[in-house]
Amino acid sequence: MKSVKGLDYFFYPRNVAIIGASRDKGSIGWTELENFVKGSFKGKVYAVNPFARKILSVKCWKNVKEIPEKIDLAVIVTPNFVVPKVLKECAEKRVKAVIIISAGFAEISEKKLTAQVQRIINDNPQMRVIGPNVLGVLHLKTGVDALFNPPYRSPRPPYGGISFISQSGALGAAILDWAGARGYGINKFVSYGNAMDVDEADLLEYLGQDRETRVIVMYIEGVREGRKFFETAKKVAGKKPVIMIKGGVTEEAAKSTQSHTGSLAGNVEVYEALIKQAGIIRARNMKEVFDFAKIFSNEPLPQGKRVQIITNGGGYGVLSTDAVLLSGLKLARMKNKTKKKIQAASPKYSVIENPCDLTGDADNERYRVAITNCLKDENIDSIILVVLFQVPTLRKGIDEMMVRLLKNRKKPVAIMSAGGNLAARHKKYLEKHGLTTFASPFVAANALKALTAYALKQKS
Amino acid sequence: MKSVKGLDYFFYPRNVAIIGASRDKGSIGWTELENFVKGSFKGKVYAVNPFARKILSVKCWKNVKEIPEKIDLAVIVTPNFVVPKVLKECAEKRVKAVIIISAGFAEISEKKLTAQVQRIINDNPQMRVIGPNVLGVLHLKTGVDALFNPPYRSPRPPYGGISFISQSGALGAAILDWAGARGYGINKFVSYGNAMDVDEADLLEYLGQDRETRVIVMYIEGVREGRKFFETAKKVAGKKPVIMIKGGVTEEAAKSTQSHTGSLAGNVEVYEALIKQAGIIRARNMKEVFDFAKIFSNEPLPQGKRVQIITNGGGYGVLSTDAVLLSGLKLARMKNKTKKKIQAASPKYSVIENPCDLTGDADNERYRVAITNCLKDENIDSIILVVLFQVPTLRKGIDEMMVRLLKNRKKPVAIMSAGGNLAARHKKYLEKHGLTTFASPFVAANALKALTAYALKQKS
Repeated sequence: MKSVKGLDYFFYPRNVAIIGASRDKGSIGWTELENFVKGSFKGKVYAVNPFARKILSVKCWKNVKEIPEKIDLAVIVTPNFVVPKVLKECAEKRVKAVIIISAGFAEISEKKLTAQVQRIINDNPQMRVIGPNVLGVLHLKTGVDALFNPPYRSPRPPYGGISFISQSGALGAAILDWAGARGYGINKFVSYGNAMDVDEADLLEYLGQDRETRVIVMYIEGVREGRKFFETAKKVAGKKPVIMIKGGVTEEAAKSTQSHTGSLAGNVEVYEALIKQAGIIRARNMKEVFDFAKIFSNEPLPQGKRVQIITNGGGYGVLSTDAVLLSGLKLARMKNKTKKKIQAASPKYSVIENPCDLTGDADNERYRVAITNCLKDENIDSIILVVLFQVPTLRKGIDEMMVRLLKNRKKPVAIMSAGGNLAARHKKYLEKHGLTTFASPFVAANALKALTAYALKQKS
Repeated sequence: MKSVKGLDYFFYPRNVAIIGASRDKGSIGWTELENFVKGSFKGKVYAVNPFARKILSVKCWKNVKEIPEKIDLAVIVTPNFVVPKVLKECAEKRVKAVIIISAGFAEISEKKLTAQVQRIINDNPQMRVIGPNVLGVLHLKTGVDALFNPPYRSPRPPYGGISFISQSGALGAAILDWAGARGYGINKFVSYGNAMDVDEADLLEYLGQDRETRVIVMYIEGVREGRKFFETAKKVAGKKPVIMIKGGVTEEAAKSTQSHTGSLAGNVEVYEALIKQAGIIRARNMKEVFDFAKIFSNEPLPQGKRVQIITNGGGYGVLSTDAVLLSGLKLARMKNKTKKKIQAASPKYSVIENPCDLTGDADNERYRVAITNCLKDENIDSIILVVLFQVPTLRKGIDEMMVRLLKNRKKPVAIMSAGGNLAARHKKYLEKHGLTTFASPFVAANALKALTAYALKQKS
C-alpha cells in the first residue's frame, strides 16, 4: 500500500496546473481555471492549452512540462483520448498529484484507454491520481476548488469539520449544494470516481489522520479492495466517527453500479456484515448522513442510553417518548431533587416526569430551571429538548439563554423544534452557536441513538 | 350518534361571538377577536366582555344573550371557572356551534368543572361544542380563524385540499406553521383537544362528506369511542385518503397521553390492528404525513407496483433502485419500443434500462424523450424522475417543459431532486404547478409505496 502522505498535495498544493483549460466560457475547462483564479487559492495558477495564448488573463503553456516550476497539483479536463498523453507528461514533469476530471474510461467500457492510464499510474507510484470520471476536489481552507460545477450553480458550503468522500460525482454535487444551503461546514470533499489510483481506503486513512477533519462521511457503491478497505475502516472508525451511506444495498442496485463507475459492488450481505463489524456508522439516506454528522460534530458523547425529554407541547412529549423507545434508547428517571426544583418553578398542572411537560404557557425561566437541573442530574445521559417557539409566552432572549446554558454541556442535547419560518429563524441562531437542532422527534431520537451507539462501542 | 351536519356552523358561520374578548393586546382573548376583525371573515363579529365598552372598535356585550341576533358560532376564551356559566348562556341563546379554547378541565383533573360542562353539553344536543383545551379552528375559505396563535407568530398556510384534525394543539400549531412555510394547501383545521362533544369520529365523518377536502390528515393519541371511530374510519377511508399519525405507539407514551388531553390511548396493539384494518394510511412522523398528503393530493393512482427510474446521476439511480426495492415496490421493465426511442435520443454510453440513466450531460431534449415514452409505456405503473439541476447541460425551460409533459399524466410521477437553493427554486416552481417533488429517493419511493398500497386496496 502506498503511503497516503502524498495526498497532502491534493489539499495543500503550492501551485496548480489546469490541463485542458478552455476559452469556452461556462465549459468545464473554463470553470476549473476560473475557480482557481477567482476563488481564494493563494498559490500560483498555470493554464495548459496548446491552442490559446491567454485565458482569464492567465498565460497558456503548450504542455505541463514547459512550465518553469515544479508542479504540485494538476487538474486534467481534456477529452478522454488525450488523457494518456497529458498524464504521461505529468509523470515526466514529476507532478505530485493529478485529478483526472475527464470521463470516458472503464464506466463506458473504454478498455484500451483505461489500460493506458493504468500503466502510467503503475509506472509512477510517486504521482498520486484521483479519478478519472470525477466531480473534483474541494478544500475551502486552502482554496483548492477543482469542482467542475461552477459556484453560481452549486454554491460552496461553509468551512467546517465534516469531510466527505463520494464515489458518485452527481451525488456529491447535490450533497455539497444541500450542505451549503443548510450551513453544514465541510472540510475536504473528494469525488473519487473510477479510483484507478487513490481509492476509498486511501482517502479514509488520510482523513483519519487529518486533524482538521472531525467527522468523515462517505458515499460508496463498491470498494476496490475489500480487505484493504475494511482494515482501514476499522482503524479509522476507532479514532473518529465514520458515517457511510452505501448505494447498491439490493442486488439489483448493486448490478447497476457496475455500469456507473466500473466497480463491482460485491456480495451485498457480506458487505453489510463487514461494514457493521468495522464500527462504521451506517446511514440509510443522505438526510440521515447529515443528521448524524451534525450531532457527531456538535455534541459530547453520552455515558449511556437514558434520555430525558423536556417539552412545552404535550403532543410532542408523547411523540418524543415513542421516538426514544422505538429507537432503542431508554427513558431517564430524574432524581427527586431535580423534579422538586423544576416543579417549584412551574405551575401545579405541569407534569414533571419523563416527558417533563412544562406545558404550553412555559416561559424562558421555566426552561432555564428545567435545562439547568437536567444537565446536572446524573440519572440523565442525554436530553431531547422540545421547544415550540409559536407560543406567545416564550420571550425575547430565549435563544441567547439556551446558548449560554448549553455552552459547556457534558451531555448531548438534541433540540427539537417544529414549525415554519419562525422556528427556522430560531434554529438557525442556535445552530450558528454550536447547538444541534432537529425538526422532528423521530429524527432527533434517531441521531441521538447513533451517537449513543458509537459512544458505547468506544467504551467497550 | 348526533348528525354531523351541525358542524357546518364551525366552518361556515354567518356570524361569530368572542366570549372573553380582551383589551390586553397580545392576549388570547384579544388575538381571537383580532383574527376575525382583521382577517378575511365576511360575517358579523361580536365581542362579549362585561367590563369593556369597545375592543378593536367592536362594541362589547355583557353576555351572549344580549346580542340582538341569532349566533352561529361562539368562541369561548374565558378563564376555566367561567366556562360553565358562559356555555350555559350559549345554550340558552341557542348558539349553533361553540369552540371552547380555555384549558383547565379533565387534562388537569378538574373534575367538578368538567362535569358541569359535560352536563350542559348533554342537555343541549343541538349545540355542538369543540374543546375545551384547544388551539382552535381554521377555515381559510370563509375566514374562520379561531386559532389563538396570532398570524405574526404562526403565519397561516395557503388554502388547499388537505384537512387536518389534531388532538394536540401544540402539535397542530407547529404543523400548520410548517405546512404554511412549505406551501401545503390546508382546507379545514381543527384542534379538538378534550373532545367533550365533537370528537375525532365526528370530524372524520364530516370531512369525509366535505367536497372541499381531498385528503384527511389526523394526529390522534387516543380515541373516545373505539367502535364509533373505527366504523367511521372504515367508511371514510374507502372514499378518500385518511392519513394518520398516532402518538402513544409505545405503552409509556400512551400513558403520558392521559395527563395531556385526559384521554386514554387504550391497548396499543389492538389499536394498531384496527387502524390498519380500517384502511387508514399510517405515517410514522409529521414529515411523512405531508410527504403522503402531497403525493395523494397531486398524483393519479397507479395501476400496479412497477416503477421506472429515470435519472441524470448514476449514484441516484443506484440509490433509487435500492429505495424502490426496499419499499416493496418493483422495478418496471420497459417495452423494447420505449427503450429504442430513448436510446435513439441519447449518446451510446447512456444505459437505458431501469434505472434509465440519461447520464450527467443529459439535456432537456433527452429528458423530454424519456418522459414522453415512459408515460406511454404500459409496462410502467409509476415513475421516479431524478433530476439533478446542478449540471450545466440542463437549460432554461426545463421546468416549463416538465409541467407541460406531465400535465395530464395518467400515472404518478415522483420527481426527486437533491441539492440546495438551486434545486429548491426549481422544485418550488414544479410544486406550484401541481407536480410532486421530493429531496431523497427513499422519501420518494416511500410516498409512492403508500399511494400504490392505497390504490391496490381500493381496487381489491
